[in-house]
Amino acid sequence: MLKELNREQLCALSSQQLKEYCEDIRTEIVHTVAECGGHLSSNLGVVELTVALHRVFDFPHDKIVFDVGHQCYTHKLLSGRANRFSTLRQEGGLSGFPKRSESEFDCYETGHAGTALSAALGIAKARDLLGENYRVIALVGDGSFNNGLIYEALNSIHILETSVLFILNDNGMSISPTVGGAHEILDEMKREPFLRDDIRLFERFGLQYMGVYNGNDICEMLSVLETAKQKLQNGSVLLHLSTKKGQGHPFCENAPDRTHGISPHGGTKKKEYSVALGEELTKLAKENEKIVAVTAAMTDALGLRNFFNVFPDRAFDVGICEEHASVLCAAMASQGLKPYYAIYSTFLQRAFDEIIHDVCGQDLPVTFCIDRAGITGADGETHQGVFDLSYLSFIPNLTVAIPKNIAEFRELIKLSADYSHPFAIRYPRDGAEGRANAVEIGKFEILHSSLSDIIVLAAGERCISLAENVLADANMQGLDFTLVNARFLRPLDRELLQNATQKYVITIEDNAAIGGLGDAINRFYMGGNKCIKAFGLNDTFIPHGEPRALSQKFGLSKEEILSYIGKCNARG
Amino acid sequence: MLKELNREQLCALSSQQLKEYCEDIRTEIVHTVAECGGHLSSNLGVVELTVALHRVFDFPHDKIVFDVGHQCYTHKLLSGRANRFSTLRQEGGLSGFPKRSESEFDCYETGHAGTALSAALGIAKARDLLGENYRVIALVGDGSFNNGLIYEALNSIHILETSVLFILNDNGMSISPTVGGAHEILDEMKREPFLRDDIRLFERFGLQYMGVYNGNDICEMLSVLETAKQKLQNGSVLLHLSTKKGQGHPFCENAPDRTHGISPHGGTKKKEYSVALGEELTKLAKENEKIVAVTAAMTDALGLRNFFNVFPDRAFDVGICEEHASVLCAAMASQGLKPYYAIYSTFLQRAFDEIIHDVCGQDLPVTFCIDRAGITGADGETHQGVFDLSYLSFIPNLTVAIPKNIAEFRELIKLSADYSHPFAIRYPRDGAEGRANAVEIGKFEILHSSLSDIIVLAAGERCISLAENVLADANMQGLDFTLVNARFLRPLDRELLQNATQKYVITIEDNAAIGGLGDAINRFYMGGNKCIKAFGLNDTFIPHGEPRALSQKFGLSKEEILSYIGKCNARG
Repeated sequence: MLKELNREQLCALSSQQLKEYCEDIRTEIVHTVAECGGHLSSNLGVVELTVALHRVFDFPHDKIVFDVGHQCYTHKLLSGRANRFSTLRQEGGLSGFPKRSESEFDCYETGHAGTALSAALGIAKARDLLGENYRVIALVGDGSFNNGLIYEALNSIHILETSVLFILNDNGMSISPTVGGAHEILDEMKREPFLRDDIRLFERFGLQYMGVYNGNDICEMLSVLETAKQKLQNGSVLLHLSTKKGQGHPFCENAPDRTHGISPHGGTKKKEYSVALGEELTKLAKENEKIVAVTAAMTDALGLRNFFNVFPDRAFDVGICEEHASVLCAAMASQGLKPYYAIYSTFLQRAFDEIIHDVCGQDLPVTFCIDRAGITGADGETHQGVFDLSYLSFIPNLTVAIPKNIAEFRELIKLSADYSHPFAIRYPRDGAEGRANAVEIGKFEILHSSLSDIIVLAAGERCISLAENVLADANMQGLDFTLVNARFLRPLDRELLQNATQKYVITIEDNAAIGGLGDAINRFYMGGNKCIKAFGLNDTFIPHGEPRALSQKFGLSKEEILSYIGKCNARG
Repeated sequence: MLKELNREQLCALSSQQLKEYCEDIRTEIVHTVAECGGHLSSNLGVVELTVALHRVFDFPHDKIVFDVGHQCYTHKLLSGRANRFSTLRQEGGLSGFPKRSESEFDCYETGHAGTALSAALGIAKARDLLGENYRVIALVGDGSFNNGLIYEALNSIHILETSVLFILNDNGMSISPTVGGAHEILDEMKREPFLRDDIRLFERFGLQYMGVYNGNDICEMLSVLETAKQKLQNGSVLLHLSTKKGQGHPFCENAPDRTHGISPHGGTKKKEYSVALGEELTKLAKENEKIVAVTAAMTDALGLRNFFNVFPDRAFDVGICEEHASVLCAAMASQGLKPYYAIYSTFLQRAFDEIIHDVCGQDLPVTFCIDRAGITGADGETHQGVFDLSYLSFIPNLTVAIPKNIAEFRELIKLSADYSHPFAIRYPRDGAEGRANAVEIGKFEILHSSLSDIIVLAAGERCISLAENVLADANMQGLDFTLVNARFLRPLDRELLQNATQKYVITIEDNAAIGGLGDAINRFYMGGNKCIKAFGLNDTFIPHGEPRALSQKFGLSKEEILSYIGKCNARG
């Protein structure tokens, strides 16, 4: 295990010893991520920077906000958590992201991109108003530098009249390589560091510019951070660093995109739903030249790399710009194209207003492919995809589908291709191929018929398989129920629901219990004499852990569902 | 009435005749806005520009996207709608914003800030892929130039490899004066038009820069637009114009902020709720120095001008940056400040992810003062505040309150000051002061008790007064019901609901019927034997019109509620 050093001990090390210590940290991270999974390349890239920060600055008195937060491992190893580092991302163990509840060294929680500079400015302003005296640092990757929030924060520096150290960790990568104009400006600054007018750009926003320095050189970092610390007395500072994502780990250096997120024991992630998306969309796009694909910096994880290779002119990775991507899709659809926007459930929250205002408000045929829906597990609160059914349930003109397996997901993609209105398909990371027939909009599917007075409506592969397990156990107890694949949240299968004669109606969904399928079914039967029970996720933020265990713990307990069914049967 | 001229006729006019025609348009706009209300200053500022655009470009073959869209009146007067212009913003009449259903000259709908450049890029890309040949223009005000979406779009220009004409209409104003670094850069460009490095900034993003030109000079506009049209063959162009908001109307020129939005017949808007917010917050802030206020370019409309004057160091207008404002509040709260973020209901949709990720995810004591909730009327689809209860209903850690009148709104503001968790208060633009007692979190109030078997739960002033009207009529028919002020969506008053003995439970809310109070109450009683009926707004986008009429037409019909109550009584 790594020997954790405090600031005093770090200051006592010679530069040679510091280099060796950085290698020890690297080894610790590589081994732990191999065991626990996690973010590898991004953490390996900032070891020297973080060690230097902990020597030059006085945490937790000084505050640091990690943008996205996935690069905070070295920070955790230097803030009293080395002894628990082996529990990384395990239920009850250390989070892979900053957590205030975990340590006073974590002053602000992150997970989504682009918030750090805004947060640092807010913390610094609070410091000023409360008459306190500490330094505030925002550590931001160049991927987030594309995000609109960063620009809104830059715009505020003059307004807020405070001082923060904005460290731009420029490794040329988001999860995918960073793209766009902002990135090209940064690149040029790395090529021609003395070009005044780029520097002027940042000075206009109220930043003293320092750069470009080598973030992987511990000695250089110690000296530039000291300088930056001094400059803070005259206002905010932008420290532009060049680092190598995956530094010190040959495989990561060569494949930083494939080593951004690692599954435990070096096992590669199953990506079946995303693979199916890539396969189906590529097939459809060959017949229909109006199909285009848009991503926000996650092309590989979303399964669209091949589509991008086959149709380079019809595929757009716009960087971490979820809102812009949505408007872009709406506008392309307004002129006759057929856009598919693939994105993780939790990140689509960023485009909520554009889904309403641009896509659905104009009733445009954009298809949202919502990956990583439901409990995603090890990344915790900020990455669970458990609100999408709730925030999509009330948007007019939108169709929302939830496939029972990958085969049905393929059918839904085909269905959406000929559909002329907004369409959303939400699905988990992985599952089974299974079998499926062609799907009709707003039609559920009866998976198991029973003469009993109980009907179970389950949404999505995980909940259907949970329901099937319940059914197997129920059968052994001599109980039975009708099981329905409730594959549309909007529109509901009115005919099936109206014709359902069962008294007891049970819904199961891996989404917040508030605002999803349960509420929709309960609303449908409002004022009637059905006895309805909705199983969904509890009204709380779900921490990191193993998806099945979390799901069982936070509202989808097989035993509870089974025992409720027993009660219904008893009541008759 | 204005004599509408087509492009050919415009081209036939001498420059003197063009100037006179612009004055005729101005007169038409001033008179119509005096009658119908609407956006005055912003439209007066772009008359010459719009006339020149209609002469130089070939609409609707060429396409123009109006950012926000409130400055499209001259465009409407020149695109076959002059004869209906007197119906502006009236139910069934012309919308105050671009509407595809209204004219093929309106290619893309807007209402919220910052979408136009993204939309123009999407339209242009569709044009390229479909092998068509027309020009695409985005007309953007400098207020929107602060918004993150614009930056995300700028970042995409290199990625999309297409060509659009980005006209920056720089009048130094949002609704309030424009603020921040981006604005200072533009200002400097106006002072020193030949400073190369500002120009380089835009060139880096892939824009050919032209500027700064006088947008109120019709002759200058004709010539620069011709030049811009030529330059489009070599890629995208940024045309930077300086215009005067309210041009040609002395009062507007002097008070562009107070003439941004005008109520009919020159009547000034009632702003009672916002006035109360200003009064209470200023009072509280005198006792509690931790209170700060944040707005996104709407300080006056939100009633906080006086607070800003009294506490300049504790008040922040960050420009049209709804997301940044939310993160800023979360971060200030994380260090012990007590932020109040005042914003319109529809614009808060932009900060949806930050409400979840930054404020509620960290359970921070930020208070959202959500103005213009419910049907706002004349601005139509993009400005109705009818989704907030739905998108706030499922966010953990959040308390959501809905005052019955302004007096109770004051009590809720006081309550929130001592509350250490996220707090949202949603309220309409105007209402009655009324009376109210101190409020407890999660406690409803019984307004009228009855022995009948019917209980009505109404949320907010408008729905409570609707319910009171229903009660009066019901009483005349010998019917009666218990009326409750359901002033908390989260948490519900469990005790009152559990103890309610009535069989018939009716909810009334001026929010989408999906996802709001009705669903919450129905969920609370799930599986029980209550007979529940929820009255809310229909599952559709609500167009412009008079709020009462719209509300009656789209789901809150007094007659329907009354007749349902009659039925309940009959069934007993």
